[in-house]
Amino acid sequence: MAKRIGNNTLNFEHRPYILGYGSVVGKKEHDGPLGDEFDSFSEDSRFGEKTFEKAESRLQSLAVGKAAERAGIRIKELDMIFAGDLLNQCIVSSFGLRDLGIPFIGIYGACSTMALGSALACLSLESGGALLAAAVTSSHFCSAERQYRFPLEYGYQRTPTAQWTVTGAGALIFGKNNGTGIYADKICFGKIVDLGVTDANNMGAAMAPAAADTITNFLKDTDTTPSDYDIIYTGDLGTVGTALLYDLCEREGYDLHCRHADCGMMIFDRKLQDVEAGGSGCGCSAAVLASFIMNRFAEGNFHNILFISTGALMSPTSSLQGESIPGIAHLINLKKD
Amino acid sequence: MAKRIGNNTLNFEHRPYILGYGSVVGKKEHDGPLGDEFDSFSEDSRFGEKTFEKAESRLQSLAVGKAAERAGIRIKELDMIFAGDLLNQCIVSSFGLRDLGIPFIGIYGACSTMALGSALACLSLESGGALLAAAVTSSHFCSAERQYRFPLEYGYQRTPTAQWTVTGAGALIFGKNNGTGIYADKICFGKIVDLGVTDANNMGAAMAPAAADTITNFLKDTDTTPSDYDIIYTGDLGTVGTALLYDLCEREGYDLHCRHADCGMMIFDRKLQDVEAGGSGCGCSAAVLASFIMNRFAEGNFHNILFISTGALMSPTSSLQGESIPGIAHLINLKKD
Repeated sequence: MAKRIGNNTLNFEHRPYILGYGSVVGKKEHDGPLGDEFDSFSEDSRFGEKTFEKAESRLQSLAVGKAAERAGIRIKELDMIFAGDLLNQCIVSSFGLRDLGIPFIGIYGACSTMALGSALACLSLESGGALLAAAVTSSHFCSAERQYRFPLEYGYQRTPTAQWTVTGAGALIFGKNNGTGIYADKICFGKIVDLGVTDANNMGAAMAPAAADTITNFLKDTDTTPSDYDIIYTGDLGTVGTALLYDLCEREGYDLHCRHADCGMMIFDRKLQDVEAGGSGCGCSAAVLASFIMNRFAEGNFHNILFISTGALMSPTSSLQGESIPGIAHLINLKKD
Repeated sequence: MAKRIGNNTLNFEHRPYILGYGSVVGKKEHDGPLGDEFDSFSEDSRFGEKTFEKAESRLQSLAVGKAAERAGIRIKELDMIFAGDLLNQCIVSSFGLRDLGIPFIGIYGACSTMALGSALACLSLESGGALLAAAVTSSHFCSAERQYRFPLEYGYQRTPTAQWTVTGAGALIFGKNNGTGIYADKICFGKIVDLGVTDANNMGAAMAPAAADTITNFLKDTDTTPSDYDIIYTGDLGTVGTALLYDLCEREGYDLHCRHADCGMMIFDRKLQDVEAGGSGCGCSAAVLASFIMNRFAEGNFHNILFISTGALMSPTSSLQGESIPGIAHLINLKKD
């Protein structure tokens, strides 16, 4: 049984180990600072498919395939897969994974999906409901632009606070035996936090309050401080959201400056790659977690980190109706034996 | 720990009891055969809000409020809420529940959401991660028409296989102590099944194969037959999907005829209410479960039933791109002490 710590945190009795992980990205992400960390990439933004949506579906199935390969299992052996994405009605996941023939649990957490799916996969293991469970998510620059903003052909001007949706997917497979030696020790599901940000080109600002809420809740629950962790990763706050996160955490007495990195700021070279405030999208934190972060664990650089994916729970319709942008952030505390 | 039975079914060690339930519907649903079963309804299709989307958000918060009232708890006491809906990026749930201040787990299962959320809430209880967990979902005729088909003003002609999206929401609250005496004994998460149906006006046909797959998997896993249950409810297959379900189950040796009812065929009077093949939408099975079905349990009519919500995992984009409609169905086996 998971033990509840404080108001928000869960500590697992049976360690959910990460047995395998896989990542796939597009060319721009491969050209970025983390290029060599990813399992594979394609020069073709359609990944051999007819549409960007189908390309993104392909990203998810490739990432799951790679994770299964690393875990040394056949995909059919998975008891459950938790998957979601950014597109309307989560079609990327449904179509990308429909041929797997395993119980499919659709989730929606916007860019918080990687941490959300991983946390739920751990919970399913802890309940005894699954022996092997996977989490996967993705995003694609071209499908996201069409969905949330304008078709690429329109060539609209980006604002300085805008972020560049990562073309990429990441998958993790959790199980009870000791594969990589990396396990989820604790999780903390986030609450919706909405401080009234309405600018759909400033997602970082909309998500930062939720990230601060989840991180400070977790630190209070566990009676720890940022310096107790090797590093604290957020998903895709970018430069604007990161500055705001530091401010908000400082008000609660936590200094994150020297212990924090943001996947959205790591995946691109902001000087050379013209991505404004950084990378974003479900695929951003997913691909970085399932590559760079796992690789650092494997090399013994990390033993205890926090991973927080952050999501903006809006749609073009809600923005057009004048609604603000609610944020959410889910946290996993990863450790290595 | 949940016990795995066969390939697909989970049996709970610690019974997740339904402590409370709540349902809210629109005027047309109130005018239907189940009208008096629902907790509340409104003559106003906007439920006092400015837009149909906000109205649907209101439906969810009202249903959760009613469920909490029946459970005798404050909403703040919930450890987790599992919520989803049909709209792009699930904004109904995010906006409807953002003020609750409890850990929010967004899910997407199209019209399978009620069974999906309930099954996950049970799993979270079984894992020890939650002591009190809620599941809620909704749909709204007007927001769904705008999202999936045409704005109402267009007045398009409906096909005979079309179904009428239910305006309604249903919520359940699960906990460990014995509230209503009704508990989830087993669950069965569904796999995506796609037999190639491409007609977006014939969701019943698209979902029936998934329903048949989940039901027959469960019956095989548990070595039971339809006659072992008081009744087997499906979510919203309508007349077309129901006929197909019977055929598909018969091929596997199971006769459902005298043990089955479909929430989509129960909620409206198809002769008087002009709904073609029946009701549909996440809110259909959710509102029927959280009213009529719970009430029959309360009155002692039921002791052992199967409840299966069925979802069509498509979007307007996937249909325009010529994709078929993948279906999914999740099952809960509800019993009473």
